[in-house]
Amino acid sequence: MKGKLFVVGIGPGKNDLLTIRAQKAIEQSEVIVGYKFYVELVKELCEGKDIVNSFMTKEIERCKIAIANAENGKIVSLVSGGDSGFYGMAGPVMELVQRKDIDVEIIPAVSANNAAAALLGAPVMHDHCSISLSDRLTPWELIEKRLHLAAEGDFVISLYNPKSKGRPDFINKAVEIFLKYKTPETVTGIVRNAERENQSIVITPLDKVLQEEIDMFTVIIIGNSNTREVNNKMITPRGYKL
Amino acid sequence: MKGKLFVVGIGPGKNDLLTIRAQKAIEQSEVIVGYKFYVELVKELCEGKDIVNSFMTKEIERCKIAIANAENGKIVSLVSGGDSGFYGMAGPVMELVQRKDIDVEIIPAVSANNAAAALLGAPVMHDHCSISLSDRLTPWELIEKRLHLAAEGDFVISLYNPKSKGRPDFINKAVEIFLKYKTPETVTGIVRNAERENQSIVITPLDKVLQEEIDMFTVIIIGNSNTREVNNKMITPRGYKL
Repeated sequence: MKGKLFVVGIGPGKNDLLTIRAQKAIEQSEVIVGYKFYVELVKELCEGKDIVNSFMTKEIERCKIAIANAENGKIVSLVSGGDSGFYGMAGPVMELVQRKDIDVEIIPAVSANNAAAALLGAPVMHDHCSISLSDRLTPWELIEKRLHLAAEGDFVISLYNPKSKGRPDFINKAVEIFLKYKTPETVTGIVRNAERENQSIVITPLDKVLQEEIDMFTVIIIGNSNTREVNNKMITPRGYKL
Repeated sequence: MKGKLFVVGIGPGKNDLLTIRAQKAIEQSEVIVGYKFYVELVKELCEGKDIVNSFMTKEIERCKIAIANAENGKIVSLVSGGDSGFYGMAGPVMELVQRKDIDVEIIPAVSANNAAAALLGAPVMHDHCSISLSDRLTPWELIEKRLHLAAEGDFVISLYNPKSKGRPDFINKAVEIFLKYKTPETVTGIVRNAERENQSIVITPLDKVLQEEIDMFTVIIIGNSNTREVNNKMITPRGYKL
């Protein structure tokens, strides 16, 4: 029997932000593959199934295990935090299955950015860039160039992977670049653990961002020149007359 | 009794791409407000409720009706296609409720862009810009500037509102700008009616985009310099060694 591989974005964390399609894919799967932390978030759906965990840096190993199980005729869900198409597992899977006879279905999800935005109010709303500050797979020079161009274009900017042990000062460099184009008062939202335990939400001016706690589970959304803070919410007007 | 207003992103269209949270919000609401087309997509959840439709250009009127109902102590869902925080209703609502005593909850969703990406394969994956080509609320000069900067930064670029009757040639101008920075072969995905009736998915080189059918229900995703087409899927490698 031909195997089936679902690449399932489970959203930011809380179970009620799963889509119905994601829930059904996991329920009908025989094998669940994913980073332990994400599998734990959907464990109620996984009872009685084969579960393959692996560690954070073993992304490609996980993809290969999921594909191998599907090649053996199994129905498999590879679970991914957020949306698997945004800095996630959809890409490596699509590359690895090129010459294999497996049905693959990517299930879109609520991304970390969408979840963080909703918690902040309406900070995105308009033309928008996402940039990852991780240089593990991208040269820092290119990241820096993109930071300049995004700020020059007055885009709303979301920063993924803003800080890790190996590169604690990249966020400092990013803020420094933004301040060349944006005012120090530019409204900025910092969401840690969006829709997970220990969630925190801070709205602060751009030049005060570095005073806040920032880690790998943080999304930072920097407003455009029209973004305002109102009643502890971050709002980027679209331009409607109200 | 204090009213409650849910701003509910219903995702791209198919009911199984609703989140569980969105479904519950609609189910517990007494009043549903939304553009007819979107309310129709979730009509099974709306039986027995007060439904207020209005026309496409009456966004602000819909927000005000929803808020007025919540001020009267009702539980209200304002439904929005895609994610309400991306070119949607979250912004106007947050601006309009500033001085009112209503609980507002924004429910994040699968955006049109996330849905289109999953249908194409894994086209986004990396640093990414979204730009709307509608000049109804944004001066064309600013849109044009953003098109230049996004292309110069080799971002993956999603175009929203690529074409309407009033401005049929903006997409031509956008492609012309992109071709100053990107090769004619740059892999481009065109998704019409993602996860709705009459869905169509095309992958084509950038210089052939204008030969395809494009309308207001189309999302166009232009790859970066590493994006490839493989087996009729669009893949932007993240950079992993596979």
